[in-house]
Amino acid sequence: MSVDVIVDEFILQDQLILNSEAVDTLFLEARTANAFTDEPVTEEQMRAIYELTKMGPTAMNIQPMRITWVKSETARATLVSHMAGGNAAKTAAAPMAAILSFDTHWHEHLPALFPHAAERKAAFDDNEAARLSMGNDNGHLQAAYFIMAARTVGLAAGPMAGFNTLGVDADFHGGTTNQTFMVINLGKPGENAWHDRRPRLDYEVATTTV
Amino acid sequence: MSVDVIVDEFILQDQLILNSEAVDTLFLEARTANAFTDEPVTEEQMRAIYELTKMGPTAMNIQPMRITWVKSETARATLVSHMAGGNAAKTAAAPMAAILSFDTHWHEHLPALFPHAAERKAAFDDNEAARLSMGNDNGHLQAAYFIMAARTVGLAAGPMAGFNTLGVDADFHGGTTNQTFMVINLGKPGENAWHDRRPRLDYEVATTTV
Repeated sequence: MSVDVIVDEFILQDQLILNSEAVDTLFLEARTANAFTDEPVTEEQMRAIYELTKMGPTAMNIQPMRITWVKSETARATLVSHMAGGNAAKTAAAPMAAILSFDTHWHEHLPALFPHAAERKAAFDDNEAARLSMGNDNGHLQAAYFIMAARTVGLAAGPMAGFNTLGVDADFHGGTTNQTFMVINLGKPGENAWHDRRPRLDYEVATTTV
Repeated sequence: MSVDVIVDEFILQDQLILNSEAVDTLFLEARTANAFTDEPVTEEQMRAIYELTKMGPTAMNIQPMRITWVKSETARATLVSHMAGGNAAKTAAAPMAAILSFDTHWHEHLPALFPHAAERKAAFDDNEAARLSMGNDNGHLQAAYFIMAARTVGLAAGPMAGFNTLGVDADFHGGTTNQTFMVINLGKPGENAWHDRRPRLDYEVATTTV
């Protein structure tokens, strides 16, 4: 699919303010990669991904997502041992893997991140349920910004939820208040990196106008 | 902040494959708008937002997010009555508002969306907890794609979680299995559309390398 496709009798590109290369890179030709080349992911790329990811909006600017970059061979082997089924081989072969978690104590940063309403922190001190719910929800928003940021850096992302989250937390997040929810493989796409694109829901199925 | 800023002694733009205009539009200069002009959001723009949003990856391609575009004056007044505090005035004044929900019965579409493993639907028939968790998590991923898609269409987005979700479901989603989680105002930014940008967490605070 390309950006100049005619969707329901209108030309998609006519509605967009970014050029077709950008739209293809981020949306229309971007794919979840299952195989990667050997080309390493650099520290500059990791920092660039974060510098873009952090700009995405979160509720009350709480930014609960934390990233654990799994770079060393030893750490990678540990992570792979927790991955389910076919995900293990993908994570073992990726040039970089990122564990995404959310800090269940994100409210400790609220006075610094939301300074005009710093007093709101107190409402969360004894409300762990709200912290878990908001941490998870906004962590997932930030995970999507991370995927878009990786694509902007020229990398393919392979997000996965199929793994032992408690095992990953035990091995990687001891002594922290971080709770893992996703692993994302990163790198340049390799041979046979993807399947055919799966179907998408039609506008008329997914949306209603009232 | 501009894309050519020097971050920790490296030039961010050097790490990116998109031009600075695209990166500014999506990340660095994009902001959550609190005020809008009167310029309407067109049906073509609504369709373009969806055509981009739907391309973002979800677990098992489940695409649980549903969009209720609130266009008529009557529907808008009903939505505004459920918004909390200052959110009511923002939603009343926005050219368009979108209620984002997830379909708690997303598994009914799984055979069509994940045809090579259609048999997995059965595992969710009696597992409402898994459906709610996956629907919510992947719905939030799609909400972030929606925000990025709106920016690609040249619109500012104002995402909000502060409203009466049960009231919105009662008034807008009766007879469906949709569960609301976010409202997003859409339009061209108006006067005094945003506050100063709030602080972001540093790379060293939000990430760890192992």
